[in-house]
Amino acid sequence: MPRIITITTDFGDRDGYVAAMKGVILSAAPEARIVDISHHIAPFDVMEAAFVLRQAAPHYPKGSIHLVVVDPGVGSPRRCVALEAGGHMYVGPDNGLFSLLMNGETKPDGLVELDAAGASATFHGRDVFAPAAARLATGCHLEDVGTPIDALTPLHWAIPTEDDSGIRGWIVHVDNFGNCITNVTRSVLERRQRSRGVKGYVGSAIVAGVQSTYASVDKGEPLLLFGSDGYLEVAVNEGHAASLLNIRRGTPINLVFVESRHSP
Amino acid sequence: MPRIITITTDFGDRDGYVAAMKGVILSAAPEARIVDISHHIAPFDVMEAAFVLRQAAPHYPKGSIHLVVVDPGVGSPRRCVALEAGGHMYVGPDNGLFSLLMNGETKPDGLVELDAAGASATFHGRDVFAPAAARLATGCHLEDVGTPIDALTPLHWAIPTEDDSGIRGWIVHVDNFGNCITNVTRSVLERRQRSRGVKGYVGSAIVAGVQSTYASVDKGEPLLLFGSDGYLEVAVNEGHAASLLNIRRGTPINLVFVESRHSP
Amino acid sequence: MPRIITITTDFGDRDGYVAAMKGVILSAAPEARIVDISHHIAPFDVMEAAFVLRQAAPHYPKGSIHLVVVDPGVGSPRRCVALEAGGHMYVGPDNGLFSLLMNGETKPDGLVELDAAGASATFHGRDVFAPAAARLATGCHLEDVGTPIDALTPLHWAIPTEDDSGIRGWIVHVDNFGNCITNVTRSVLERRQRSRGVKGYVGSAIVAGVQSTYASVDKGEPLLLFGSDGYLEVAVNEGHAASLLNIRRGTPINLVFVESRHSP
Repeated sequence: MPRIITITTDFGDRDGYVAAMKGVILSAAPEARIVDISHHIAPFDVMEAAFVLRQAAPHYPKGSIHLVVVDPGVGSPRRCVALEAGGHMYVGPDNGLFSLLMNGETKPDGLVELDAAGASATFHGRDVFAPAAARLATGCHLEDVGTPIDALTPLHWAIPTEDDSGIRGWIVHVDNFGNCITNVTRSVLERRQRSRGVKGYVGSAIVAGVQSTYASVDKGEPLLLFGSDGYLEVAVNEGHAASLLNIRRGTPINLVFVESRHSP
Repeated sequence: MPRIITITTDFGDRDGYVAAMKGVILSAAPEARIVDISHHIAPFDVMEAAFVLRQAAPHYPKGSIHLVVVDPGVGSPRRCVALEAGGHMYVGPDNGLFSLLMNGETKPDGLVELDAAGASATFHGRDVFAPAAARLATGCHLEDVGTPIDALTPLHWAIPTEDDSGIRGWIVHVDNFGNCITNVTRSVLERRQRSRGVKGYVGSAIVAGVQSTYASVDKGEPLLLFGSDGYLEVAVNEGHAASLLNIRRGTPINLVFVESRHSP
Repeated sequence: MPRIITITTDFGDRDGYVAAMKGVILSAAPEARIVDISHHIAPFDVMEAAFVLRQAAPHYPKGSIHLVVVDPGVGSPRRCVALEAGGHMYVGPDNGLFSLLMNGETKPDGLVELDAAGASATFHGRDVFAPAAARLATGCHLEDVGTPIDALTPLHWAIPTEDDSGIRGWIVHVDNFGNCITNVTRSVLERRQRSRGVKGYVGSAIVAGVQSTYASVDKGEPLLLFGSDGYLEVAVNEGHAASLLNIRRGTPINLVFVESRHSP
């Protein structure tokens, strides 16, 4: 089967930039199947890109190539990389975009630095990353497109702060329905919460407990639940949580554990 | 030829949700050709989705599969269905999405209920509808993906009220140019109008007669005409009718028949 | 290889119009590969469409077909055309959309007028242009889809005014990052500038000199540079130039040549 190349950028949809990248890919790898993940990542927001990529990429067949260009450092000496992890390949700047997919690991199964010498200073997406993705799609190996390096630049921002009394995370993404997705995973919460209750303080809301469906609370009431990707979300049943609770990307959430009154 | 799967949702373009559905489809049906119809249906607006689907789907080849996820009832007991009508297949929630395409009929050529047991409570698009569409794309029959049922849930909202003195409909969609599309078809209007004139009362405008082209009135003047899909539109020649005439989705339109002064 | 058809329109993404065009194409040319360039051209803005097309189209393989529907004159007697230039084919209204790609030339390598008789008065994209593009994708020649004509309608708006003291152009496009792209090419500037310095007056900014990268000035400072497509841009290092400098599409830019103080 022809290889799939997904594309994620913060380029928006008013320009010819994404289409230029697709033209470069189709010129070099005419059989590649191109699928858009999103081009509406907030400009330069590496964390949101990492999150959206984490939502979508694992559902693609093994062997897919995920091209991600959210690149606040274009023109600076940050590295351009291609890597293999979990049977998928990724191409983009070495700025943490792939950290959620790798659960914070910095040593993928394969990792090379791409050569950006001679590329335009302003558009590495078209001149460095798209050509590398296209070459991988035609069957090239990682070593054919770059120079092996040891590890990705380590990244710390993606991880919430946790101790035995609570967890402090933040909102990494507000979806189209106003649901506010945090960087707190189910496994972190359950490990710390044990048999205690939990209260969440976020925006203008104080929310008790974690529900299993939106409809577990009355219409218009806020709730916490784990979304379909395993991250804790702040939502409002049949409402737009971000607007109603005054939450934006970057808003902190404090989760505090409370002893249940009903415990023996 | 590989099967075409079109996708219509209210998911917007900032999230990884649509891309996750595409990954599920391409994992199960690697040869399927995926085409986006729109992901910008107003959130939970079943009628707008039904209208946009009606604009686009009939132009696809027979055998195409139309996956539609505009689903205000996700998590409630509304049924998940797949159906065949007019040589096309459709997959989505049983909430009226397919009613305009079926001209209000509730008994398609084939109809099954999908099994949603075990799916995530929040994302049937990825966990129920996309897998069913993918299986149909690989050649499965309706009975292979669900349990035959008799009829779709009947739907009443799509039909304007009509009597011999006039028709009362409403705006179902405002397009990118500000044209305001009603739920009044040419056949309904002509059957009721007979040889009389017609006046339309909608937003801040009173518009006489139905024109054949935008340019039939002066620049900046409002007009009624039948759009390329056979629905009555309220437009302004070289202007944005919705803004200029204070019209939104849901605004009513009253069409009143008047005896022509020039009739004998 | 199957032929590529790119699509550029001002139809936005809320309607079924673009998807209807794709259905028409896939019904007539099932193997065509469809790629979106942009559907967010400002409504009726022929110049912006010409610019975005110029950004993207040259990166596609020879033999690609570029379908462009930005058509303020639909319903007027403007011609519908298909043409071949530089190994690519183009289909759309004869209103200047292709002028930047042809560097102002009006006689492409091949040019035919499409027959629009019998098409809906409101939707030539679906009824005239998409079918012609599909026929070209199946291998038809230009003469098979229309009647040879001699030249495109000449166009004057795309060219900045220039003399020995300076150049007066304007902003043709504001990209997703707020960079403001002018219609001034590197070759025009260099031919007129010779060894002199240059000052740009645009919006609320006076900018001296042309830089080679965004980072050549301090963060937050405005600059001029040539973008990756060879057009002069007004940018702000790590900032949104359009907002910060009060620039929009259509804003004029005056480039004045100044004798360098340091010249001997």
